[in-house]
Formats: sequence, structure tokens, C-alpha cells
Amino acid sequence: MPFDFIPEERRLTQPEELLTYSYDATDHRGRPGLVLRPVSREEVVEIVKEAHETGTPIVPRGAGTSLSGGPVPADGAVVLDLTLMDRVREVREGDRLVTVEPGVVYAELNRHLEEYGLFFPPDPGSGSVCTIGGMVAANSSGIRAVKYGTTRDYVARLEVVLADGRVIETGTYARKSSSGYDLTGFFVGSEGTLGVFTEVTLRLLPKPTHYAAARLAFDGPGDAAEAVGRIIASGLEPAVLEFMDRNTLRTVEEYTGLGLPDAGGVLLIEMDGFDDGVEDSLKQAIELAGAGEVETATPREELWKARKAALPSLARRAPGLVLEDVTVPISRLPEMLQGIEEIAGEYGIAIATFGHAGDGNLHPTFLVEERDRNLEAALERLFSHALALGGTLSGEHGIGLEKKGYMDLEHRGSLELMKAIKRELDPGGILNPGKVF
Amino acid sequence: MPFDFIPEERRLTQPEELLTYSYDATDHRGRPGLVLRPVSREEVVEIVKEAHETGTPIVPRGAGTSLSGGPVPADGAVVLDLTLMDRVREVREGDRLVTVEPGVVYAELNRHLEEYGLFFPPDPGSGSVCTIGGMVAANSSGIRAVKYGTTRDYVARLEVVLADGRVIETGTYARKSSSGYDLTGFFVGSEGTLGVFTEVTLRLLPKPTHYAAARLAFDGPGDAAEAVGRIIASGLEPAVLEFMDRNTLRTVEEYTGLGLPDAGGVLLIEMDGFDDGVEDSLKQAIELAGAGEVETATPREELWKARKAALPSLARRAPGLVLEDVTVPISRLPEMLQGIEEIAGEYGIAIATFGHAGDGNLHPTFLVEERDRNLEAALERLFSHALALGGTLSGEHGIGLEKKGYMDLEHRGSLELMKAIKRELDPGGILNPGKVF
Repeated sequence: MPFDFIPEERRLTQPEELLTYSYDATDHRGRPGLVLRPVSREEVVEIVKEAHETGTPIVPRGAGTSLSGGPVPADGAVVLDLTLMDRVREVREGDRLVTVEPGVVYAELNRHLEEYGLFFPPDPGSGSVCTIGGMVAANSSGIRAVKYGTTRDYVARLEVVLADGRVIETGTYARKSSSGYDLTGFFVGSEGTLGVFTEVTLRLLPKPTHYAAARLAFDGPGDAAEAVGRIIASGLEPAVLEFMDRNTLRTVEEYTGLGLPDAGGVLLIEMDGFDDGVEDSLKQAIELAGAGEVETATPREELWKARKAALPSLARRAPGLVLEDVTVPISRLPEMLQGIEEIAGEYGIAIATFGHAGDGNLHPTFLVEERDRNLEAALERLFSHALALGGTLSGEHGIGLEKKGYMDLEHRGSLELMKAIKRELDPGGILNPGKVF
Repeated sequence: MPFDFIPEERRLTQPEELLTYSYDATDHRGRPGLVLRPVSREEVVEIVKEAHETGTPIVPRGAGTSLSGGPVPADGAVVLDLTLMDRVREVREGDRLVTVEPGVVYAELNRHLEEYGLFFPPDPGSGSVCTIGGMVAANSSGIRAVKYGTTRDYVARLEVVLADGRVIETGTYARKSSSGYDLTGFFVGSEGTLGVFTEVTLRLLPKPTHYAAARLAFDGPGDAAEAVGRIIASGLEPAVLEFMDRNTLRTVEEYTGLGLPDAGGVLLIEMDGFDDGVEDSLKQAIELAGAGEVETATPREELWKARKAALPSLARRAPGLVLEDVTVPISRLPEMLQGIEEIAGEYGIAIATFGHAGDGNLHPTFLVEERDRNLEAALERLFSHALALGGTLSGEHGIGLEKKGYMDLEHRGSLELMKAIKRELDPGGILNPGKVF
């Protein structure tokens, strides 16, 4: 029996068990042949070695919250469920580093770090359940990326099981290095196609103690986008700078009754820091923005309720929705929003757009009942438009199955190089086959 | 005649012309067979294609200020002098991006950016002459890395001529991306062994308007190192946090007469920002440091004279000096300094240590007349000690010829992977052969 060195209770074969590993947060589905739940690096190594010898496809998986289809297994593949490897191994307080197993949940890690006054900033929407390993695989980020960057910026070291079962360590505990090629950064965002992470060392930052937030309402989405440009160009460093368009606002209002303005666009802005200076910074940003309506009186948590309700509200309105993830340079946000409106009109699809405007990352959400050719044509227009503006297919969700057909549009000649390195590292093609390319 | 499509005046063959391309800032030497000075991507492509077809080694070169031997040509190799490709192509002010040719000089770029209120922060000691291409090749940094990071953190896009003459573009103008493998970061720090950069797009930051600096003197080097740990752990963000030991101080004093304290260790600290808050931050850092003597009255520029004089003064005392570049986690700085003292005693070599203590990067400088076996043994001990503390062989200078013999000590299994990728990208081994590995 294959992989029989994994005990029965962590070796799932029943259809109802396999079913829970057949999906992620997209509508892609794939039936795994087997699910293995290793508890140690040694077990992962043994699994990969047997997979290597038998040519069995393996799909590393964390919480399965991906929005790209990345962890959806190829039919018959072995899923490597890493959620049982969930120990925080070591906090190096003086060096602001933490070493964890890949299955540690993002929010739990930050709870664990509270006593040290430290935090791991990338803040994905699925942070309450997603795993560090999954975040490293997708180079995840979220509403704080505008100030704090993405997961890649925080990965200091990785322990990786390669396709043939060899174990390597990449990176350093030092704060910088010019020693050899940057394998660490290269593995971040590789979506399980180059190796299996069995240990991750992350850089941490001191957790801010002061926050100040406001909601700004604008007549049109372009006005909001231009305000984003002015705020970012000023050198002010908002910790969060989120956008919601009229479609999003109306839908959220419908399902929550939060009393949101019926505006052409809203920005939610938050400053963080270590003293009352955050209030001054917020005032400066508000002045630069020149919004029609400014709400600062409400407690900060209230302001965020609307943003957090965006995707759930839209999903109630259109359960088959398709959430996109294009990212453009800040200066091109007005053109991107304009393009989205045009695509909505041309293809007759309602699109609600929200997202991390401060770093150019928008989530135009296509409110459809199901995927069809009209939708695919609209998506292709969306991607082409973002790329023509100097943007990228994905700001934070990854490529997975969702966008592999468009990789050539963005990367052209570079794509061949990525494929060559993939072939070199995984000649048998057993690591998460069919993803990214 | 090889490469005869390059006009004679940019195709150097005379021994006295070749001589100036035979060295860098180390004592390594190599005689090039030919020097080509291309002025366009098209010429670089033609050169690489002919080199590819004829199996001719080529060595990309900027200003040749490297401290690792990286640009020192293998005997008979063709040097690709990229300093004539020195145009700033485009400043995208709203997106804080600049696109340059590889031969642009660091300091000139920052002068060019002044009118936009922007700057490219990594600040190597050779900044007045070194080129952006060279900085990207070595992942250079300098005294500001403690706050601002290294060159890799700022490279958004690269245009790269691969070993067979194909041209690819990597990266994006967007502020973040989860689309495919991170080729951009992988090329940064590759020391001319994976491709030739013909265009670089850098992220920029708003240039601070306020500065505050101080010099702190301590009884022993360990006291200074512990102060560094407290300052960094506090979450204060010094823009500069430099260390000089007693040997360095005495040598600088001897050659400059600046009136430096005869202390066991000195820290130079600078805060930068956009308001008077920098003064408060400096005061907090000084309190945390608990130094015996604090000098803040002198103009900032005066304080920096001593640090800038460190290497020149040491070089006058010992023209054959060997400048090292080990980097350790901040918490291990006291042990690293202790280890350096022990090595000095054990091998009977005077060592003056200064460097970027704030990011753990020390430049222990071996004051020798020439390299010999005793020195080599002492260096190996230095590297082993740094690696045992979780550090790295090079914080900012690169590996080049200088440290390739030690790569296995640091990278072990990862080294095979780096070599495999090198072979895949440059199967003929024509790109800067003999470096890094």
C-alpha cells in the first residue's frame, strides 16, 4: 500500500474525507487519490521520496483558503495536508525572528507574538484560518501591504524538501546577505511547485500601539483614486488605504444596514504608530484627499465593519461571483477603474470593485451566477487592461489554475525561464502539477 | 576579428587600456583579452550572442569598485564595460519609480532625483562612483541599510540579456505581485553570472527633510554592541547606526586629528524623518544606549567625518589590508566582536573593526602587509565563527573570488541548487566564469 508508513488515522482514503480536500475558495475542484497528514519533516521527506520514486503527483496544502485554485489537487494526486505541523518553534526576540512549522495559523501566530510586542504584518482576508505555509506559497498580503509589504519581505529562512526528497535550508538569520543567489525569495510565491516548506523563519516588527482611522466619501471612483495618488506621493505612510465603489457600498448597506454613504467611492484610511503623531498624519492625509464627506467620529472598529462585510455581502448577492486581483501602479488607478466600468458595460456584467487601493491592488468582483464564455472574455479584457497599464495579473492571490492561461501575456520571455527552472528543480513534474504554468 | 561590429574607439585592445580593467578594490587581478564598451541593449545582445556562439567568457563590469573580486576578469575574458550606458530613462514620480541604464552612477542618480524629493536609499561607501548595475549585481547596501534595506528591496524590474542573447523583462511596475516566480530578486546579487542587466527600474522613497545625529562612546566594544541590541529591539528606527572599535578610532585620530575619544567602542547614530520628531527619537536612543560620553553638539557632518575616514586611514596604516564583511544577527554582535578579538590574539594580526552594527554587518579589517597562510587561517576562523552565530559570509560585498571557497560552509545543500540553476541558465559557463562558486 502506498505511503503506508503514515499511520492510518493520518492517511485518509474515504471519499467523504477526500472531498474536503477537493476544493479551495474558488470554484475549481479536483479529486485527490489520497490525503496524508504528516507531523514531521522526516515524514514529509519519506512521502516526497516515495512520490519521487513512483512518479506520484503531490499537492502541499495549508488551510485551502486560496483564491487561485493553487491547492486544488490534480485528479488522483496525493494531498499533503500540513496543518498538523503547527508548532511555533522559537521566538528570537532580540533579532525579531520567529521560526514556525508551515501549518501555524496566521492569526494564532500573531496572538502568540503579542506578549513580545511583535507582529508579522501581512494581513490576508483569510488571516483567521490561513496558514503560514500557504502564505509563503502564495506570497500573500492584505490590507496592510501598502505600508508593510508582502510575505516575501518577511521570509528570512526556509527549510524546503525538494522534489527528490533532499532537504535544503535557504537564507540566513542575519538581517541582510549578499552571499549567493536568493533562493529564499524565489521559493516564496512558488505555489507548491518547487518544494515543500517544512520550516519558515519570519522577520517581525514591533506592534504599533496607536491607531487613527477615517472614512472618506467621494463623488466618483476616479476622485477617490486620485486622492490615493496624492496621499501616497506625499510620503505619508498609511497602514491601510482601502477602496470601495458604489456597487460594493450599496450591497454592503443592503445586507448590513451600517448607514454607509451612497457615494461614487469610499476610502478607508488608517494610520498606525507609537505615539499621538498618528492623529496628525491622519489629518494631513484627509486634507490631501479632499473628500466630500469625512467620518472620523465612529470607533475605528465600526469603520472596518463595512470593509470586512464587502466580500460576504457580495457573495450573498451573487454566490457564483468571481473575485479578481489585478494590481496596477498607483498613478494608473483612475484608468484601471475607468476600464473596469467600461468592461462592465460592454459585457453586461455587474462588477463591484473594492480593494487595497494604496498599493494599486483592486478586487473587481464579477457578480455572475456561473462562469461562461462572456465572463471569460470580460476577464481577458480586464487582465489585458491591467497589464497594458504596467500592472500584474495577481497582487496577492497567486496564479494557481485561475490565471495560468494568461501568464504568457504578462511574462512573455521570462515565462520560458520560469519553466526551465521548474523543470530543473522538479524534472518529474510531481510537485503540484498543472499549477502556475 | 571578434566583436568587430563594435567601433574601434569602444573596443579596447591595447595593454595599457586593458590594464585598467584588470582589477577591482581587492588585490585580485586578471588580464582581459578585450574590453568592449557597448552603448545600447542591441550592442550587448550582439556581443552576448557572439560570445555564446564562440564560447567566449564575458565579464559585465560597472565602476569596478567591488570588494569581492567579482568584476576581476578571468584571464583572456572579454570585459563588458557598461559605464557608457548611463542614461536616466524615466522618472515616474507618482509611482516613485525610476528606470535607468546600468551604468548610471549611484550619487548622480540621487542628485537627479533631488528635484522630485525622492531618493534611492542604499548608500554604499563607493556611492560617489559605483554604478547601479554593479549595485544590483552585488545586492549592495551601506550605512542606511539598518533602516532602508538593501538594493534587492528596491528593484522593481530588470531587463536582462541571458547567456544565449535572449532578452527578457522581469518584475512589474506595480508595487506588489504574486504572479509567477520572483526572477527579479533572483537576478539581484547574481554577480554577473546569470545575465547582463541592460535596464533597471528602482523603487524610490521620499527624501527625509530632518536629521539628528550623535556620537556615543563606550568603555568596551561589548557595551556598544549591547546598546545596538537595545536600540533595535525598542522599535526605534535609526537611519544609521555605525560602530568603530578602539583600533579604528586610534588610527583615524592619528591620520585626521579630529579629536575622537579614546574609547573601547563608538556608535554613530542618525535619525531621519520629516519633522522635529527626529530629535525626540535620537534622545530616546541615547537614553537606551547608556553611553559614557555623548556628543551631539557638533554639526552632523563633523560627526560623520570620522566614519568616512575609517577605511582611508586604515589603508594608510596598512596598504595591504583585507576588509571583511561578515554579518550576524543583532543579538550575536557581542559574541562576534569577542570572537574577532580572540582571532586577532591567536593569529597575531591587528584587526580594526568598524561597520553597520545596526544590521549586524561588521567590517573586521585585517591590517596585514600581504596575504599569507596565517591570514587565510584567521579568515576561515572568522567565517566559521560568523556562520556558527547564524550569520552570513557577506552582508553587502558579494562572494566574487574572495569567498567562493567558503560557500559550502554557509549554504551546504542549497549550494547544489544554486549551481544547478546557474548551469541551466548558462550551460556554456560564459557569464563571469569562476565567480561565486
